[in-house]
Amino acid sequence: MLKTLQWTDTSLRLLDQTRLPAETVYINCTNERMVWDAIRCLAVRGAPAIGVAAGYGAFLSISTVDACVDVLREKLHTACDYLATSRPTAVNLFWALDRIKRCSIAPAALANVAGGDAVAAFKHQILDECRKIEAEDIACCQKIGQHGLAVLQSLGKSEPLRILTHCNAGALATAGIGTALAPLYWGHERGVKFQVFADETRPLLQGARLTAHELAHAGIPVTVLCDNMAASLMSQGKIDAIIVGADRIAANGDTANKIGTHGVAIIARHFGAPFFVAAPTSTIDLALGDGTQIPIEHRDPTEVMPQMMAGATVFNPAFDVTPAALITAWITENGLWQPGQESNLFNAT
Amino acid sequence: MLKTLQWTDTSLRLLDQTRLPAETVYINCTNERMVWDAIRCLAVRGAPAIGVAAGYGAFLSISTVDACVDVLREKLHTACDYLATSRPTAVNLFWALDRIKRCSIAPAALANVAGGDAVAAFKHQILDECRKIEAEDIACCQKIGQHGLAVLQSLGKSEPLRILTHCNAGALATAGIGTALAPLYWGHERGVKFQVFADETRPLLQGARLTAHELAHAGIPVTVLCDNMAASLMSQGKIDAIIVGADRIAANGDTANKIGTHGVAIIARHFGAPFFVAAPTSTIDLALGDGTQIPIEHRDPTEVMPQMMAGATVFNPAFDVTPAALITAWITENGLWQPGQESNLFNAT
Repeated sequence: MLKTLQWTDTSLRLLDQTRLPAETVYINCTNERMVWDAIRCLAVRGAPAIGVAAGYGAFLSISTVDACVDVLREKLHTACDYLATSRPTAVNLFWALDRIKRCSIAPAALANVAGGDAVAAFKHQILDECRKIEAEDIACCQKIGQHGLAVLQSLGKSEPLRILTHCNAGALATAGIGTALAPLYWGHERGVKFQVFADETRPLLQGARLTAHELAHAGIPVTVLCDNMAASLMSQGKIDAIIVGADRIAANGDTANKIGTHGVAIIARHFGAPFFVAAPTSTIDLALGDGTQIPIEHRDPTEVMPQMMAGATVFNPAFDVTPAALITAWITENGLWQPGQESNLFNAT
Repeated sequence: MLKTLQWTDTSLRLLDQTRLPAETVYINCTNERMVWDAIRCLAVRGAPAIGVAAGYGAFLSISTVDACVDVLREKLHTACDYLATSRPTAVNLFWALDRIKRCSIAPAALANVAGGDAVAAFKHQILDECRKIEAEDIACCQKIGQHGLAVLQSLGKSEPLRILTHCNAGALATAGIGTALAPLYWGHERGVKFQVFADETRPLLQGARLTAHELAHAGIPVTVLCDNMAASLMSQGKIDAIIVGADRIAANGDTANKIGTHGVAIIARHFGAPFFVAAPTSTIDLALGDGTQIPIEHRDPTEVMPQMMAGATVFNPAFDVTPAALITAWITENGLWQPGQESNLFNAT
């Protein structure tokens, strides 16, 4: 499995996903600005991975600073606010940075120390929170894999299970084995046969570059198609289920994910194919009643048309919102989630 | 208006559409093999343009040959059969070549001549048929423009009319002003305001390269989007109508067109947006009862993934079939066609 991100004790080492699959190059981030840039330019992407990276990015703002706890806390909060401006849609970014902030005002580790010891304890407490966010993400991915595999197997289809996915919600989008792809990794290790169809996912081709790359690397059969070919496949009855990740899920279940997800969901419904969203509960934003409130990032037109044309403009939203009514089920680390079931499914975080 | 193809008396001059919009280069075809290659590699594409080009291509097989009429006819039929193998889906190709064959066995022009005069008369008769096919295409496009504009205006939407199209069914796809784009050109000349949204149309980007190019050239506002962004636009109520061309229409109305059309039609139906097909009646293949009988061309995987990846395969159909039930209306040179209305709408050709 490719290592998406790795804390080295002095830096955050990020696999530069903009250069995959041609080159396997790492970026060694030693401060929060480098992490901001890496998130912004999509060197690291995928909602859970962005959250983990942002946590470490915040810690890098204080890791080598020699100052008292109050100054460090101030610097840390400034870094959190700054990192939160890197991208607008994935809620895991804000969720992780909020955890870091909350951790910085928790008194636990500072109770019985003072002076230099207090500073070391404070830094330790923040780094520990970053590591927890990462470890929880790894664990979430595994649990999503378990629950998701059970869901896919419950469809009663013969193997290979033919699964369509959009964009990349795999190992490269998380610290673990992914969200949408987790059930495939989990099943593959247990001998379940799959045939995965990966939408190439224009304009940045995360499907053709990243999903195909990591699945081929793992030995899971994968076929790349252009985004506009999904209806052709489904009309021929060649898809048993669709599974995608999520960047933010509103309280009513409306789900923001990579641009094109909404169209796939409409087509899936038309052909009666089940459409699943796989995401950690940290992707659910209960503060938003529905999807209309999710901010949608619009990116540079040259992503679509590298050579812009006089007289033509470009429409380039990075995400769309799939209404809850088109989603068969949401697969989380705690099992199937349904809007309204927060109380019994959420971990206290 | 860019000239897609032009007969020069000794050759067929084709605009090389594989190099647009970066370069405006012409291919001077002097024999049927060059025309076959140009159709195959998509230097000339679009169902009506392919038909016109194939006709001239067939004529080039005899234009400079010194032989008796029977030998010329034999050569012509061989060339027609050969050109018919260039691509499988667009019926206009076979329709035009059938016309050339039928013309070659019509006795009219040969009635009162013999010897060298008969040869000249035969060649003249074939070339004349090629010119008729081209002239009829130009006239068809104009009539489709007239009828199509009336249809779009009958929707009662305020200007600018916001029209989504897929692939290129414009001037570059015909000898005239196009099929799907004809109503836009016709209206634009008469002061009607449009905002066109052009799906880029992967893998070969006929929307981003050709539709955007010719509309921008004509001064019609055009916005390019990735194919997977159409649902985002429609969900925001930003599209008044969808209009596309066709490569083959079965007797029941099922319509083969560029890959992705079926998905757009499903999404349009989901949002209640009218979905129109614009095509000359020569695109209607009454020999096929429904769309399942339309042969679908599958093209080279490297069109989708220029750098193929070990362990990954590619799905690359060039067309899909949109069921008649998803199509609001078919706009032809004879007005609106409905499956079953052949008798009163078809010209005798």
